[in-house]
Amino acid sequence: MIADLPFTLAALRQAYASGLRPEQVVEEAFRRLDATGDPGILIYTARDEALAAAGELGAYDGRPLWGIPYIAKDNIDVMGMPTTAACPDFAYDALSDAFVVAQLRAAGAICLGKANLDQFATGLVGVRSPYPVPLNAIDPAIVPGGSSSGSAVAVAHGIASFSLGTDTAGSGRVPAALNSIVGLKPTLGTLSATGVVPACRTLDTVSIFALNVSDAWDVFDVAAQFDAADAYSRNFVKKGGLSKTLPLRVAVPDARTLETFDDDIQRDHFHGDVAKLAALGCEITEIDFTPFYDVASMLYQGAWLAERVAAVGSRLTEKPETLHPTTRAILEPGLDLTAVDAFNGFYRLKALQRQCENALAGIDAICVPTIPHFVTVDDIASDPIGPNSRLGTYTNFVNLLDMCGIAVPTGPRKDGRPGSLTILAGKGEDAKVASLAALLEAGDVGATGWTRDKIRYSEPVIGEDEIGLVVCG
Amino acid sequence: MIADLPFTLAALRQAYASGLRPEQVVEEAFRRLDATGDPGILIYTARDEALAAAGELGAYDGRPLWGIPYIAKDNIDVMGMPTTAACPDFAYDALSDAFVVAQLRAAGAICLGKANLDQFATGLVGVRSPYPVPLNAIDPAIVPGGSSSGSAVAVAHGIASFSLGTDTAGSGRVPAALNSIVGLKPTLGTLSATGVVPACRTLDTVSIFALNVSDAWDVFDVAAQFDAADAYSRNFVKKGGLSKTLPLRVAVPDARTLETFDDDIQRDHFHGDVAKLAALGCEITEIDFTPFYDVASMLYQGAWLAERVAAVGSRLTEKPETLHPTTRAILEPGLDLTAVDAFNGFYRLKALQRQCENALAGIDAICVPTIPHFVTVDDIASDPIGPNSRLGTYTNFVNLLDMCGIAVPTGPRKDGRPGSLTILAGKGEDAKVASLAALLEAGDVGATGWTRDKIRYSEPVIGEDEIGLVVCG
Repeated sequence: MIADLPFTLAALRQAYASGLRPEQVVEEAFRRLDATGDPGILIYTARDEALAAAGELGAYDGRPLWGIPYIAKDNIDVMGMPTTAACPDFAYDALSDAFVVAQLRAAGAICLGKANLDQFATGLVGVRSPYPVPLNAIDPAIVPGGSSSGSAVAVAHGIASFSLGTDTAGSGRVPAALNSIVGLKPTLGTLSATGVVPACRTLDTVSIFALNVSDAWDVFDVAAQFDAADAYSRNFVKKGGLSKTLPLRVAVPDARTLETFDDDIQRDHFHGDVAKLAALGCEITEIDFTPFYDVASMLYQGAWLAERVAAVGSRLTEKPETLHPTTRAILEPGLDLTAVDAFNGFYRLKALQRQCENALAGIDAICVPTIPHFVTVDDIASDPIGPNSRLGTYTNFVNLLDMCGIAVPTGPRKDGRPGSLTILAGKGEDAKVASLAALLEAGDVGATGWTRDKIRYSEPVIGEDEIGLVVCG
Repeated sequence: MIADLPFTLAALRQAYASGLRPEQVVEEAFRRLDATGDPGILIYTARDEALAAAGELGAYDGRPLWGIPYIAKDNIDVMGMPTTAACPDFAYDALSDAFVVAQLRAAGAICLGKANLDQFATGLVGVRSPYPVPLNAIDPAIVPGGSSSGSAVAVAHGIASFSLGTDTAGSGRVPAALNSIVGLKPTLGTLSATGVVPACRTLDTVSIFALNVSDAWDVFDVAAQFDAADAYSRNFVKKGGLSKTLPLRVAVPDARTLETFDDDIQRDHFHGDVAKLAALGCEITEIDFTPFYDVASMLYQGAWLAERVAAVGSRLTEKPETLHPTTRAILEPGLDLTAVDAFNGFYRLKALQRQCENALAGIDAICVPTIPHFVTVDDIASDPIGPNSRLGTYTNFVNLLDMCGIAVPTGPRKDGRPGSLTILAGKGEDAKVASLAALLEAGDVGATGWTRDKIRYSEPVIGEDEIGLVVCG
């Protein structure tokens, strides 16, 4: 029964090997979308395009994402589809694929549509959109998370195998935590920004949501190609893939600076996750997290707000009524920032970066809760900004410090809400953080009820479970 | 006769080994200073301090700069001396040494005083100072060059063995060219900025003037230490020293984009220098220099002007009368730049950086004339800004592209004026550019009439000349 088929890469590859057709998968994907009854997930539904693409795939040919259905956040161009960035007045028809989308297309992936988002990718809640707001896949009382709201919810429902988000402040991690899925935030410049609507150009990256770390990694491996046309693209030599070589020295916020806004369940759950890290053989070092919070606070209170203003151009002054009221309220102070303010911000960041570097001397990776606590739709209705800011506690500093990271579910908290932690490390260490995160992912696979797949290591591993997977992968 | 003693490191080390006392050298240095009859070279004359420091050195102890007299640009703190940045109202008494000065002191060097400069290191001409303007050491009709005017002139007269400058736009290279000496501009962050008055903080570096490349390198080797207190300090692993391993593929501006402002003598001289490079075995590649000029133009016409405004703080708005009129006129437009302007500037720079990288694919180093033509004191009297900008043609882009470089004299031009070229390469390649430049330096040693020393390679070399030097060094 295709209705029971997990859309994980392992399951789909096996099904395709057994004769399943991509057209059937596309039909099933849209059946699942319809079954959610949620009109807020996609801004553009590409049923016809997806069926056509599925038909054109022909026979299975071993490409790494052959027949894999995915969804793109609607600030990423997919040829022939509109791009809105959740601002109808901004909408245009994409004449070509974003560089990353082109990589996915070449690898055989099928785009099902364009996902809702916080307008111009500004927000972590997922409710700052003029379109119907997507519902959290686990619990509709909780915000879906943003800005990549629809991307995360679609994967959590098992509609798509993966989705593309973008992540500047945490938009690729916070919604992953809130929907019990994986959110891989690559090193800045690893995934090209060509064809992506900027939010904060020096700090933006495309990100990947998936049902498990191995799937996210396979997508990353396809998407991470140098793009000479993107001045911010960086030509990292890929440092391997998922491996059993673990970062052993892991820093965590100390008791005084671990912030959960009085959510003791979140605190306890995190301590449980850290205990698992220790059980894996990691040496845990508690550090004062103050400089990281100081960096985080600069993202919306400092120079970088002006980047968001630059990204929307004259819209903020000439057509402010076309902006979501909250987005407009956030951006407007950016108009008053001077270039001197900007440089003073950079100096302060540089000094804080040094403090953070010092705090991390001898450390391989950082482990934090992905979110400090949960935020409900009602919380945001009464205060659209404060709870949003709190959600960025463990994400806002990451791109400012040029780190990479991955958020993974770690099983339900005591109250049943999804647990999630994030592993972070310096630029280029994407494989390291993913390898460690893969050992920690646990619990619900989004809202699907599916069983969690075994890790697929990039190097073949001798063992009964892995042999079959190596053959499939 | 000490009056005939060259103050090169080799000559001084040999003289010290034969019993000369540092006090004698200090006395001779000030005799030479007095003999110039130029009151504009130093803002602060540290005769007493220098004699005391010489006395405290005791017996020769082998430290690399033992007894070597030098001068610091007056935007660099020397403990117990005033720092003015050529703005009397800004003056303060330095309570401690700049980090670089502390390294020199620890290595045995003796500071003779603080040198005149273009106010707040803004300028390439050396005449933007409220103090008497230093005269060019070779030809007083020509500007001394700036902003490190006094530093360069003092070395060109043989008063000091070396001097410290700073270099943001070319202040460590242009005055070297105009006074027939060596100007080493390190990779950004290699020499600490602690205790240095900022001009444009993200693009500033301390620089070194010396009588020959080997001397500049020895000073660089002492001064280049990581400073944890300077957030912009970078911990480069030193890539060797002066060596005979040459960069073989050298780019030069093509005929169409080689800019000499109709100075055909300069053009011919440069072609002669390039012919020498080819004779050394370098493979010369002519490149379109347009993107480098485009980068150069951003330094004073873009976001970075705001850094200079940030550096002078409230002075520009609250005490503008304390600024040199030209400095003030240059800085004021920076007040109107917004943070959005700044980010748009960074985006444009990033795109240009990529163009420059592409132009340099497969290239080891760039060779350019240090200056495109000569500027006279009269030229500046009639137009204080235009001729200054032209002097930055081959220097303004260098720090914006995170390159290192070294300017060396290459012998007199056909008309007798000093020839100079600059070798440039990417960050951290300081040893590479110095090694190549050492093979090209030629002609007059400043205004001294001294003979040029042999190159001191960092690796001992079998040969009659070098053996003695290795023993001394």
